[in-house]
Amino acid sequence: MMKLRMAMIGGGEGSFIGPVHRMAARLDGMIELVSGAFSSDTEVSIKTGTALGLDKARIYGDWREMLHKESILPEEIRPHFVTVVTPNYLHYAPVRMALESGFSVVCDKPLCLDTAEAEDLLDIINNTGQLFCLTHNYTGYPMVKKARELVSSGELGEIRMVIVEYLQGWLSDAVEAAGNRQAVWRVDPERAGIAGAMADIGTHAFNLAEYVTGLEISEICSDLSNTLPSRVLDDDGSVMLRFSNGTRGTLVASQIALGEENNLTIRVYGSRGSLTWRQMDPNSLVVMWPDRSTQHFRTATTFDEMGTLSGFHSRLPAGHPEGFIEAFANLYRNFALHLSAKLEGKDHDNRFDYPGIIEGIRGMKFLEAVVSSSDKNSEWVAI
Amino acid sequence: MMKLRMAMIGGGEGSFIGPVHRMAARLDGMIELVSGAFSSDTEVSIKTGTALGLDKARIYGDWREMLHKESILPEEIRPHFVTVVTPNYLHYAPVRMALESGFSVVCDKPLCLDTAEAEDLLDIINNTGQLFCLTHNYTGYPMVKKARELVSSGELGEIRMVIVEYLQGWLSDAVEAAGNRQAVWRVDPERAGIAGAMADIGTHAFNLAEYVTGLEISEICSDLSNTLPSRVLDDDGSVMLRFSNGTRGTLVASQIALGEENNLTIRVYGSRGSLTWRQMDPNSLVVMWPDRSTQHFRTATTFDEMGTLSGFHSRLPAGHPEGFIEAFANLYRNFALHLSAKLEGKDHDNRFDYPGIIEGIRGMKFLEAVVSSSDKNSEWVAI
Amino acid sequence: MMKLRMAMIGGGEGSFIGPVHRMAARLDGMIELVSGAFSSDTEVSIKTGTALGLDKARIYGDWREMLHKESILPEEIRPHFVTVVTPNYLHYAPVRMALESGFSVVCDKPLCLDTAEAEDLLDIINNTGQLFCLTHNYTGYPMVKKARELVSSGELGEIRMVIVEYLQGWLSDAVEAAGNRQAVWRVDPERAGIAGAMADIGTHAFNLAEYVTGLEISEICSDLSNTLPSRVLDDDGSVMLRFSNGTRGTLVASQIALGEENNLTIRVYGSRGSLTWRQMDPNSLVVMWPDRSTQHFRTATTFDEMGTLSGFHSRLPAGHPEGFIEAFANLYRNFALHLSAKLEGKDHDNRFDYPGIIEGIRGMKFLEAVVSSSDKNSEWVAI
Amino acid sequence: MMKLRMAMIGGGEGSFIGPVHRMAARLDGMIELVSGAFSSDTEVSIKTGTALGLDKARIYGDWREMLHKESILPEEIRPHFVTVVTPNYLHYAPVRMALESGFSVVCDKPLCLDTAEAEDLLDIINNTGQLFCLTHNYTGYPMVKKARELVSSGELGEIRMVIVEYLQGWLSDAVEAAGNRQAVWRVDPERAGIAGAMADIGTHAFNLAEYVTGLEISEICSDLSNTLPSRVLDDDGSVMLRFSNGTRGTLVASQIALGEENNLTIRVYGSRGSLTWRQMDPNSLVVMWPDRSTQHFRTATTFDEMGTLSGFHSRLPAGHPEGFIEAFANLYRNFALHLSAKLEGKDHDNRFDYPGIIEGIRGMKFLEAVVSSSDKNSEWVAI
Repeated sequence: MMKLRMAMIGGGEGSFIGPVHRMAARLDGMIELVSGAFSSDTEVSIKTGTALGLDKARIYGDWREMLHKESILPEEIRPHFVTVVTPNYLHYAPVRMALESGFSVVCDKPLCLDTAEAEDLLDIINNTGQLFCLTHNYTGYPMVKKARELVSSGELGEIRMVIVEYLQGWLSDAVEAAGNRQAVWRVDPERAGIAGAMADIGTHAFNLAEYVTGLEISEICSDLSNTLPSRVLDDDGSVMLRFSNGTRGTLVASQIALGEENNLTIRVYGSRGSLTWRQMDPNSLVVMWPDRSTQHFRTATTFDEMGTLSGFHSRLPAGHPEGFIEAFANLYRNFALHLSAKLEGKDHDNRFDYPGIIEGIRGMKFLEAVVSSSDKNSEWVAI
Repeated sequence: MMKLRMAMIGGGEGSFIGPVHRMAARLDGMIELVSGAFSSDTEVSIKTGTALGLDKARIYGDWREMLHKESILPEEIRPHFVTVVTPNYLHYAPVRMALESGFSVVCDKPLCLDTAEAEDLLDIINNTGQLFCLTHNYTGYPMVKKARELVSSGELGEIRMVIVEYLQGWLSDAVEAAGNRQAVWRVDPERAGIAGAMADIGTHAFNLAEYVTGLEISEICSDLSNTLPSRVLDDDGSVMLRFSNGTRGTLVASQIALGEENNLTIRVYGSRGSLTWRQMDPNSLVVMWPDRSTQHFRTATTFDEMGTLSGFHSRLPAGHPEGFIEAFANLYRNFALHLSAKLEGKDHDNRFDYPGIIEGIRGMKFLEAVVSSSDKNSEWVAI
Repeated sequence: MMKLRMAMIGGGEGSFIGPVHRMAARLDGMIELVSGAFSSDTEVSIKTGTALGLDKARIYGDWREMLHKESILPEEIRPHFVTVVTPNYLHYAPVRMALESGFSVVCDKPLCLDTAEAEDLLDIINNTGQLFCLTHNYTGYPMVKKARELVSSGELGEIRMVIVEYLQGWLSDAVEAAGNRQAVWRVDPERAGIAGAMADIGTHAFNLAEYVTGLEISEICSDLSNTLPSRVLDDDGSVMLRFSNGTRGTLVASQIALGEENNLTIRVYGSRGSLTWRQMDPNSLVVMWPDRSTQHFRTATTFDEMGTLSGFHSRLPAGHPEGFIEAFANLYRNFALHLSAKLEGKDHDNRFDYPGIIEGIRGMKFLEAVVSSSDKNSEWVAI
Repeated sequence: MMKLRMAMIGGGEGSFIGPVHRMAARLDGMIELVSGAFSSDTEVSIKTGTALGLDKARIYGDWREMLHKESILPEEIRPHFVTVVTPNYLHYAPVRMALESGFSVVCDKPLCLDTAEAEDLLDIINNTGQLFCLTHNYTGYPMVKKARELVSSGELGEIRMVIVEYLQGWLSDAVEAAGNRQAVWRVDPERAGIAGAMADIGTHAFNLAEYVTGLEISEICSDLSNTLPSRVLDDDGSVMLRFSNGTRGTLVASQIALGEENNLTIRVYGSRGSLTWRQMDPNSLVVMWPDRSTQHFRTATTFDEMGTLSGFHSRLPAGHPEGFIEAFANLYRNFALHLSAKLEGKDHDNRFDYPGIIEGIRGMKFLEAVVSSSDKNSEWVAI
């Protein structure tokens, strides 16, 4: 495959997710960062880009300028795609312009601020024919692929109940007041949107539940809370779920669960088998059966019972732990495979999947429903 | 202390909980089973009692007869208390008559069929002055005592969020149709009452949440489900919780969570610390802090940080796993300590606690609220 | 079956193992303690026996007196067996006299002080026809039974390598100097014998390895250490193992492994499967296969793949943790089943096994070999 | 810092460790692969190098040719260092020539075939002043750094006992006979050297024990085994350890431990604290204390109790699992930091450490001792 060139919007010094995207893009040697508007503060942008070894001419303080200038570069140096890693409120405009400037796009989640924006992006994607990846990165873990496969193959039977949770503790205190850069924008409705924890991590949980089960959540009933009174947006919330096929479940997302690091866990109970996957132990998938002992599937074992799908998404034999960066890199790798295949006029093997605009729209609808239900004292609201 | 004599109602051959009560009563050598009406089938009762080494004269086929005859025995052989281990529908009447016949009582949970019955029993207990223990046995685990202590001492700060769940998988299939004796009565509204899984195990989860936090759940919003259409009662349900002090939470109880054995887990998140306790690993209590590494408290370590409360409730030094029977026996032991102190005119150290009628009434109110909320398509209902 | 009467030697106030034996004997309702010489200090013995509710006439300060007097009691009140729970140096004489007085015997481990004593006891057992149980209690765990079964059935193939370890930390400090009663005699060669940690816990590890594998350890090469210079006996030691069939392995026993509670772990690697069992998580048995995912067997699941042997040795369905006391009680239960069958002239189902004199002799030989090898700067010594 | 250019010897198609080195070198964006002799089969080398996007002119079929030609390239494109990822027998010559050609070197472990070769390399390194990194990659894990720090700071007190093990199961069957490329050379004395499992993974365990404890192992007593009779070299072995300060321990290395993935575990017991680290759960470090509950340290928490050393070696906040590749990359990163500082005439912060020639010599001495001891039927042999 061809090596792809990437431009980045956001991710300047002090960013958390920017470096993650860069490491993920770098890991498999398929992608080269060639330009960036890392910050609206030109000095910060230059400092970041220089440290990354970029040509100064291709470091920008304004993403509009970057998209414009980079789009008219000669084909052999022009970026193939743009990665957007800014706060939520600054997703829609850059993604839109990047697409319209002839770039494929990778964008951090959640997609944007509302369903209207999201559907607008869908139209533009459809019209431009560009590829689009939304980094719901947890679906990149090999054992999440395996989980999805166990459900879709019918091995777990009919799915009856789902428990998904994403618990963090880092907003237990008002760290935003102390200037924690990651916190400041996440608790600010102007920059984060209509939801706090639900937008930041609840959408991951929602996405994971739909990805693993292959089902749509059709109705939700929620109770959101701003545990710290100083906050406007939710920092904790519970949601009861009804899926279109009658499956029930719960989703909990909290950033005030003191002591939790990054506890994203999904449990899926079926009529013939059940599974548990925990991001904190990502290379294991626990599968329970009615008639034999619980099995612990592991990333990259060579047994025939291991699905090929998970095998495709690991790099090393079993016992060599692959973590967050590798899972994130799986999205970049699959996106790169797809994009290079497209550019070379080849077919893409769609088992190498990645989340896109549809998942982005689902996320927006989920957020609107979850806020609406909570506002109505926990009425059931359709998604 | 004096050795106490016990009579038993229920627990005949094929019973699950009867033998548990007997082992629990036996473990610490404080209690002797002296008589029983183990089954309404006299032959079964005699067979059970004989196998237990009882005097034939004190084995009965009718519990009313037993209560009557045993109550007029001479003081030196008369039972000190009666244990009721029948299905739910058959709690109220025997408990009532036992109390009125001058016996203290141990009763399996849930207390009875509704709040009216429960409050009636409260009156009788108050009037007779007899002691009453309701076997919400999970509160007998040393690490549950420790958990309660960590909250009540303020070490965890203000409690903000609670997640409690009790998951089993044994009703994933319609085992009642195949004659599973434990299942048959539990899925039958005549014998189980207004709720299925919520009565059988949800009340344990509810009780555990209130016991550990020392808080009252004031409002609930629930979604119950009879996953197997052949069932009338719930076999799975989700509940959102609001506590009187503003704490929020969720409770899930399911008996169709295929593969789960007896997964009762509580997580309590506070402003200064958080805890997790799992019945499947009962001798550990995981406590998370904002400013130092997670600690794994263990039953019966000798460290000064171990609360005396948990120390009192273990029998062996750390590393000698104590399980379900030992925890159950802690209720019997504390009840026996209380009863013998009362009979000997001594004071009881109330750190040796056990659940009683108040917990029984709370359970009834919880069940009524949870069913009512679900019937109203998940309106919030006060408890 | 008939209820059996038990007399006890040792186990007075302050004893650790005495109460364990009593709880274990009590749990299943098959055995009644009727008499005891709990301490050579008559007052202590009376205090202990009285607290246990014994008839004062049957509480003794001298075990010889007890054995004599109890042996001539009428058949209907005479004890059926005697339990010896004194320190090591005080096993041989009481066991011998008990057997010769017509009692079957349960004795704590290690059997005695040397092979000569052990073989003498074998002769007496053979001559008297009494039953004898040595409480290598860890073999009573259901999952240890299952482990043995997996090996003996050939499911793991040829056994190639064994790692067994028993790690404790309670002798990390010189607690004997502070008067810790359990420590004082264990570090004293007069009372403990030729070995310290190896006698106290190494023999358990050795016994477990031979029990699970069904193989004999034929040669050992050891390096013992008295980590605390104030000690004469080993408090820590490593042993390399060769089994009679060529299997290799290691055994580590330490009481200075600070922080370890009671970490007895065995791992057995075969040509077709491997297993791990940990006393700290006793209801799980992890089994690894070459061609499918690791399985976690659990006590008392109902799956057909669970061996009946483990099922026989649990009391409750899966998910109700059974611990140290229950495993210990399994030895008492099996011994009681055997003894009552013998007394009633019935056959005993030998799947209900318990360790006896042969295991006691093996333990003595192991200790002699392990000390000898270490003394010879780790030469291989045959057992 | 400056971006460094790397040449590679070995790592052609089908290599396991070659791609690991490349991902590790790539992850942090400090190093660029510019040339390679990936295979002695020129076609394979070209295919590999082309897929990696290298300039064809800088892909070689002969490593001598590469070292020669690359060494005379202009400064601005000449590699700064050479990475050697060939089988053991092909380490010495390329490392030597690379050093003598003016390159710093990264080399896979074990260093070479014997102590003589190793000491020769030491001389050359000293004479040339080039930097040298030996990829005992497990020391790159943040929690291994933390472990070392806990020991060196004295928090664990005096170290008394060490248990280290490295267990794999992939050579349980004679996969070499079936052509498994990784197995074929590892079981061949011509290519692997005097030891099999001990060289391949035992040296990692040995290195980890010395790294974490900061102590030297001075004497060993071993029992090696070729479990599969078709093998000449050990595939399993036990070693008893004596450290120079009197600490004792055991080391087990096996590649026939069926079912084990990559179970490298170290336990260090001190007089004031103990620790356990497991490669299979690499982001946790369990620390046990005499007077408070066990703590689970975690990679990259922000608590002040976390050593800065581990913090320096992680990339993401706690809860974002970092695995094998990240740990491996820490060696490359530290080596790159050191090399670029040297090239820029700056000081290197030696907390950013990596294993080098000294560790390589220790490994050779260990292998010679362990083979010698086993050959002498387990005599103690000094290292």
